[in-house]
Amino acid sequence: MPVTDPRSPLALAQGLIRCPSVTPLEGGALAYLAGLLAQAGFSVERPVFSEPGMPDVENLFARIGGDGPCLLFAGHTDVVPPGDAAAWRHDPFGGVVEGTELFGRGAVDMKGGIACMLAAVLAFLDLRGPDFGGAIAFLVTGDEEGPAVNGTVKLLDWARGRGERFSHCLLGEPTNPDVLGEMIKIGRRGSLTADLVVHGVQGHVAYPHRAENPIPGLLRLAQGLLAEPLDAGTAHFDASNLEFTTMDVGNPATNVIPAEARATFNIRFNDLWTPATLAAELERRLGRAAGNAVRYSLAVRPTNSVAFLTAPDAFVDQVAAAIEAETGRRPALSTTGGTSDARFIKDACPVIEFGLVGQTMHQVDERVALADLDRLAAIYGRVLDAYFPGTAETQRQA
Amino acid sequence: MPVTDPRSPLALAQGLIRCPSVTPLEGGALAYLAGLLAQAGFSVERPVFSEPGMPDVENLFARIGGDGPCLLFAGHTDVVPPGDAAAWRHDPFGGVVEGTELFGRGAVDMKGGIACMLAAVLAFLDLRGPDFGGAIAFLVTGDEEGPAVNGTVKLLDWARGRGERFSHCLLGEPTNPDVLGEMIKIGRRGSLTADLVVHGVQGHVAYPHRAENPIPGLLRLAQGLLAEPLDAGTAHFDASNLEFTTMDVGNPATNVIPAEARATFNIRFNDLWTPATLAAELERRLGRAAGNAVRYSLAVRPTNSVAFLTAPDAFVDQVAAAIEAETGRRPALSTTGGTSDARFIKDACPVIEFGLVGQTMHQVDERVALADLDRLAAIYGRVLDAYFPGTAETQRQA
Ligand SMILES: [Zn+2]
Ligand SMILES: [Zn+2]
Repeated sequence: MPVTDPRSPLALAQGLIRCPSVTPLEGGALAYLAGLLAQAGFSVERPVFSEPGMPDVENLFARIGGDGPCLLFAGHTDVVPPGDAAAWRHDPFGGVVEGTELFGRGAVDMKGGIACMLAAVLAFLDLRGPDFGGAIAFLVTGDEEGPAVNGTVKLLDWARGRGERFSHCLLGEPTNPDVLGEMIKIGRRGSLTADLVVHGVQGHVAYPHRAENPIPGLLRLAQGLLAEPLDAGTAHFDASNLEFTTMDVGNPATNVIPAEARATFNIRFNDLWTPATLAAELERRLGRAAGNAVRYSLAVRPTNSVAFLTAPDAFVDQVAAAIEAETGRRPALSTTGGTSDARFIKDACPVIEFGLVGQTMHQVDERVALADLDRLAAIYGRVLDAYFPGTAETQRQA
Repeated sequence: MPVTDPRSPLALAQGLIRCPSVTPLEGGALAYLAGLLAQAGFSVERPVFSEPGMPDVENLFARIGGDGPCLLFAGHTDVVPPGDAAAWRHDPFGGVVEGTELFGRGAVDMKGGIACMLAAVLAFLDLRGPDFGGAIAFLVTGDEEGPAVNGTVKLLDWARGRGERFSHCLLGEPTNPDVLGEMIKIGRRGSLTADLVVHGVQGHVAYPHRAENPIPGLLRLAQGLLAEPLDAGTAHFDASNLEFTTMDVGNPATNVIPAEARATFNIRFNDLWTPATLAAELERRLGRAAGNAVRYSLAVRPTNSVAFLTAPDAFVDQVAAAIEAETGRRPALSTTGGTSDARFIKDACPVIEFGLVGQTMHQVDERVALADLDRLAAIYGRVLDAYFPGTAETQRQA
C-alpha cells in the first residue's frame, strides 16, 4: 500500500471521516481542520453558538491574506447518523479505502468536499504564499444537517460583526447527481410547509346526517390545491411543486365519524413566489374549493428558505471553465434539489455550489471515487488560480 | 315521597341501574333479574360464555309456560362506561329520581326497557297464571355493548341446543329518536368496514420525480368510492351510505414523500347488498378510479352484520296497535340507525325492536321520563294480551 501524502484530498477526507461528528457533535472534525489551517497561516476562530432548548454547536471561521477580493469556502463537518452500522460494508467512521473508493459517512456530504477545498488551498498557498492578492476564508459549521440554527446563520452574523466581507462564496455540497462535472447550483428553490385542518362534527356512522365528516372536505381542499400547477417554471427554475407529506385523522373507531382531519404539505417554489405571495395563493385556492361547504384552517409555518438565484457572472464562468478543463464536461447551471446553507450565504455575497457526486449521500455505504477527490481538488485549485491571477512573477508555473 | 311498588317499572329500573354492570361485568344485574323471574315461576339459567383472550361473560335465559307460541323478550343488562362520573348531575349508578325523570347509566339503553318488560310480564302472570296458552322467554346478555362475542350469538346457539324455539321476539332497545311511540325497528342495515392502502415510493420532496406520492392516489380512490351513491334506498331502507372514518399517513417529516397512505371506511348498507356484492362493487369502483396509475390494496373486514328485514306481519300490527293505544302515535316502521343484536336473533325467529327514547343513551346524564317507563310497560302488557288472547274466562278484565 503506497504511503499517502498527508495533505492529499484522500488523507484529509479520511482524517475528517474518522471524526464521528454526527450533528450536533463536533467529534474532533473542526479541531482537525483548525490545526491544519492554523499551520498554513490562517487565523482561526471556533465560535460556539447556543439557543435555549438546543445543544450548543461548535463552528469554525478561518481567514488568510490581505486586501483585495475575499473568496469564501463554505461547508459543514457535521453528518447525518450512519443508521445501522452493521449494514455498512465498512465502519462508517473508519475512512476505509476499498478498490477505487473511500467509504464513510460524509464521504460526499461533505467531508470529502471540505478535504478537496483544504487540499487545493494548502497547495495554492505553498506556491503563492500569503500575498496572493486577496483573501481566502473558510466558514465551516457543525449544524447543517440538524436544525441549522446554531450554524451558518449565526456564523455569518458573527463574521459580519467582525467586519468580515466576502466577494464570492463556493459551497462544497455534493451537487452532481451522477458524475463529477455535471452540475453547478446557482440558486435554490424556496421551501414552504403548511398545515391544513378541516373541521367537522363528530358522530356515529349510522347517523351521518347528525354529524359532519371532515374527510370529504379535506379531499375537496386537497384537490383544490393540486388541480392546477402553481406555475410553469422560469428561465433558471423548474416549476414550483406541492407535495402532501401527511394526512392524518387518527380515529381508531370504525363506527365513529371523526371531528377533524389534518394534512401537511410542502411546496418547493421558484423565483416567481415569495412565502407571502404563496400563502395568499394557497388561501385563494382553498377558499374557492371550500365555498361555504368546508370549514378549515390553514397555518403556514415560518420559513427562512426563499427562492434565490445567483445571476450567472464571471465567477460562475471561472468555476464552469475549471470544471470543463478537469472533467471535459460543461456543467449545467441548476437550481434543482433541496435547500442548503446557500440560502443564508446569498445575503452576504454571491454564492454558488459545486462539490462531489451526491448519489450515496445520507445512505448506507456512502462513498466517493478516489479519482473524484483528486479531480475536485484540482478544480478548486483552478478556481483559486483564476480568482487570484496575481502578477506575472507570483503566478503558478503551469 | 310515595312508597314505590317494588314491581313497578321505576323500582325495577332503579334496581338494575344500581348494579354497576359495565361490560363485561355482571355487576349483580343478572342476579337481580334471575331472582325476580324465578320468584314468578320462570325456570332460569345463567350460562357463562368464554373465548380465548376475552373476559368470560354471564348471560341469562328464562322461560315460563307450556305449549303454544313462545314470545321472546330480549335485551342486555350491560352498559357503556359512565365516562367522567363527576360530570353527571347524579351518580350514574345511583338510580336517582329528579322531578319527572330517572337518572343513570342504562336508564334508556336498556335497563329501563328490561324493567318495563319485566313489570309487564309479572303483571300479566299475576292475572293469567302459568297456563296462558303459550310460553314467555327472556334472553338477556351481558355482552351487547362490548365485542358481542360471548353474548346473544352464543346464547341463541345454547338455547337452540336445548330445543328452545321462539315464535316472535321483541327486543327492547331504545328505538324512539325523540318521543315514545314514534318508531319500531323492523330491520337493520348491514355494516361493512374496509381498509384501503395506497402504495407509493418514499423519497425527498425536492426530488418528486424519484418518488411516488401515495396521497394523490388515495384522494383519487376516495373520490372514486364517493362519486356516485351506492343506491337510492328501497321500500323499507334508506340509501346505503359510505363514510371514511380515518385516513392516516403518520409521516412527521415535512421533507419526505411517504411510502404509503391508509384509509378506513364503513358502509351501512341496505337489503340490495350482501357483504360479497358490496365488496365486488368496491373493487369495481377502485379498479376504475385507479386505472394503471394507483397501486392499492383493499381489505374488507369480516362482518356478521348483514341487512335484514322482518316483513311487516300480524305481530308488527299488534305491537303498533299497542303503541297507538297508549301513546296516540302510529309508529313508523324503520330500519335506520346502528346495528343491534336483532341481527343475530333474526335467524331464530321474526324480531322487531321497540323500547324507550334513545336521546340520552351513551351520554352523560342518561335519563328516562317516569311517564315513559309506565307507558312502555303498558304497551308491552297490551302486546302480551294480544299475543296470548286465551279463553274468555282467562282474559284480563279491561
Ligand atoms: Zn451537506
Ligand atoms: Zn342497547
